Amino acid sequence: MLTAAYLGDRTVGVLDAEPTAPAPGEVRIKVAYVGLCGTDLHIAHGHMDRRVTTPLVFGHEMSGVVDAVGDGVDGWVPGDAVTVMPLLWDGTCPACVAGHQHICQNLTFVGIDSPGALQALWNVPASTLVRVPPSIDLRDAALIEPVAVAVHDVRRGRVAGGDAVVVLGGGPIGTLIASVATRFGARVAVVEPDPARRAMVRGLGFQTPDPATADVVAWVEEWTGGAGADVVFEVSGAAAAVATVTDLAKVRGTIVVVAIHAEPRPVNLQRVFWRELEVLGARVYERADFETAVELLDAGAVPAEALITRVAPLGEIAGALEDLSGGRAMKILVDVQAGQEVAR
Amino acid sequence: MLTAAYLGDRTVGVLDAEPTAPAPGEVRIKVAYVGLCGTDLHIAHGHMDRRVTTPLVFGHEMSGVVDAVGDGVDGWVPGDAVTVMPLLWDGTCPACVAGHQHICQNLTFVGIDSPGALQALWNVPASTLVRVPPSIDLRDAALIEPVAVAVHDVRRGRVAGGDAVVVLGGGPIGTLIASVATRFGARVAVVEPDPARRAMVRGLGFQTPDPATADVVAWVEEWTGGAGADVVFEVSGAAAAVATVTDLAKVRGTIVVVAIHAEPRPVNLQRVFWRELEVLGARVYERADFETAVELLDAGAVPAEALITRVAPLGEIAGALEDLSGGRAMKILVDVQAGQEVAR
Repeated sequence: MLTAAYLGDRTVGVLDAEPTAPAPGEVRIKVAYVGLCGTDLHIAHGHMDRRVTTPLVFGHEMSGVVDAVGDGVDGWVPGDAVTVMPLLWDGTCPACVAGHQHICQNLTFVGIDSPGALQALWNVPASTLVRVPPSIDLRDAALIEPVAVAVHDVRRGRVAGGDAVVVLGGGPIGTLIASVATRFGARVAVVEPDPARRAMVRGLGFQTPDPATADVVAWVEEWTGGAGADVVFEVSGAAAAVATVTDLAKVRGTIVVVAIHAEPRPVNLQRVFWRELEVLGARVYERADFETAVELLDAGAVPAEALITRVAPLGEIAGALEDLSGGRAMKILVDVQAGQEVAR
Repeated sequence: MLTAAYLGDRTVGVLDAEPTAPAPGEVRIKVAYVGLCGTDLHIAHGHMDRRVTTPLVFGHEMSGVVDAVGDGVDGWVPGDAVTVMPLLWDGTCPACVAGHQHICQNLTFVGIDSPGALQALWNVPASTLVRVPPSIDLRDAALIEPVAVAVHDVRRGRVAGGDAVVVLGGGPIGTLIASVATRFGARVAVVEPDPARRAMVRGLGFQTPDPATADVVAWVEEWTGGAGADVVFEVSGAAAAVATVTDLAKVRGTIVVVAIHAEPRPVNLQRVFWRELEVLGARVYERADFETAVELLDAGAVPAEALITRVAPLGEIAGALEDLSGGRAMKILVDVQAGQEVAR
């Protein structure tokens, strides 16, 4: 079967590999689609070379169908449509004992720390499976993982009905946070400097003040009757966004740090103190977030059409990563079965 | 009567003034003691020149006795021992409407934005009064305001029984936070670089790892069995403390920003994200915090003896401010009545 792997030295290649039978407790999935995300780009660009073991079959946003079931696995049969919650925890560290298994101090992230979904037949622990109802197309089901990220972020921010929410960054995760927050009853503005992305976000019905021409702080103040936003999501990863994020939140407002900031960022702690703000980190998801993500996708609350720029066959993964890297796409799905017959 | 006032141009002076009768709704207090704090130093050093109107009679940590009662004031009679919660809110801004009057968007802080306690007879709105029971000495009662700050901080941090708490900064507020957190059931470590302050804090029974010789992150990790601290209070105002504070907290741990940071500080947002930390601002206090502060002082839970370095007469306020500024004192109280006979 064909797999896509990071080979080290900033190189991604397509490799041939032998499928294996699922071990006890595992399920083998015939992978349908894999979404490419920022983490996959970080791997491909060599930014995570100290963490990963090469060659690494990556990919963790996926959909597929159960192909075979290992010993001791109950509740799953071949043909079941599934996605995977790609987290494995040790269950014994202080974070796990306190009930925060999803951010276990020794977390294994499947697709980074162990083989991922970019392979025709993928063995995973049955505990990671999440059921996909037949009403959701497998193409859309590949979005369940990023939707679960957004659900987790919105839950961490305790977004409630009537809240004024600002999202800094209108990429796939920012757009999904905006969609989920809307579903939770909020009115949402998305701040995104790129004109094409801003137009896409505006087309979905969100407010989109242009940071190049508008004073976003003044805009939010007017939009909220002088109060400031209830919740602000920092999804951009940009230092400039961090510099103003504290000015956007109301007294006792919440700022959720969703983006990865590779280096320390200057933060206006005076404003955190003055307004008694709450700055929260939000990372990955819990099983309940996946279940809500499935429900939202099933209910049509996720703008899948707008987000999926195109579907590429596995053999064209390098070009897909280049398009993403160059900002020429929102979400690209890899059709993992397309072209597999070449390898057979 | 004599008053102590900031005259502008980094100068504090003792001025003579005529006492006035309390207006309707006001109470006149014969001020006993006024504690000097960091904010008073900021005023005296000219750092708040753009905010204050000179001459400004400052001072807001105080104790005294009701001297006269204005029209329309119920519940107070001359002779009642009191302290003052020095906040006036507009009641109409979005923060007030949401129930956060103590950090009203147009807050008047008495002693900064209006005349303070460094005067023999002081008129204040009756709404600001807090009763001091006869069992508390007026000298100790001057600590109620900073104790209320500490109570507010500990409540904001949701410190609970059994928590491991780290306080960065062993000045008066840091020491009071440590004392209040202990009373709330926590075990507490205080990180303070100054040897004399560290010795004082150690003498009160707190853990005191020396940041000059110990790796505080490793120390906290060992102290907490590999988990990290439940709650960390940033009371130092130092950039170096902010640089490590995120490494001290456990997964889903809380960091409370108590200190004023005049400029943006580099913060490890990657760690905020990774451990899903919660960074909270905590400013001033609510009435419940004052009431708890009175209870704690009455119960002997506040190390008043260790904190009050000395008592100075009003006429020696300049020297008292210099000693504080040079780190030669923890808390200095001004005896406002001492020397008043000179002016009469």
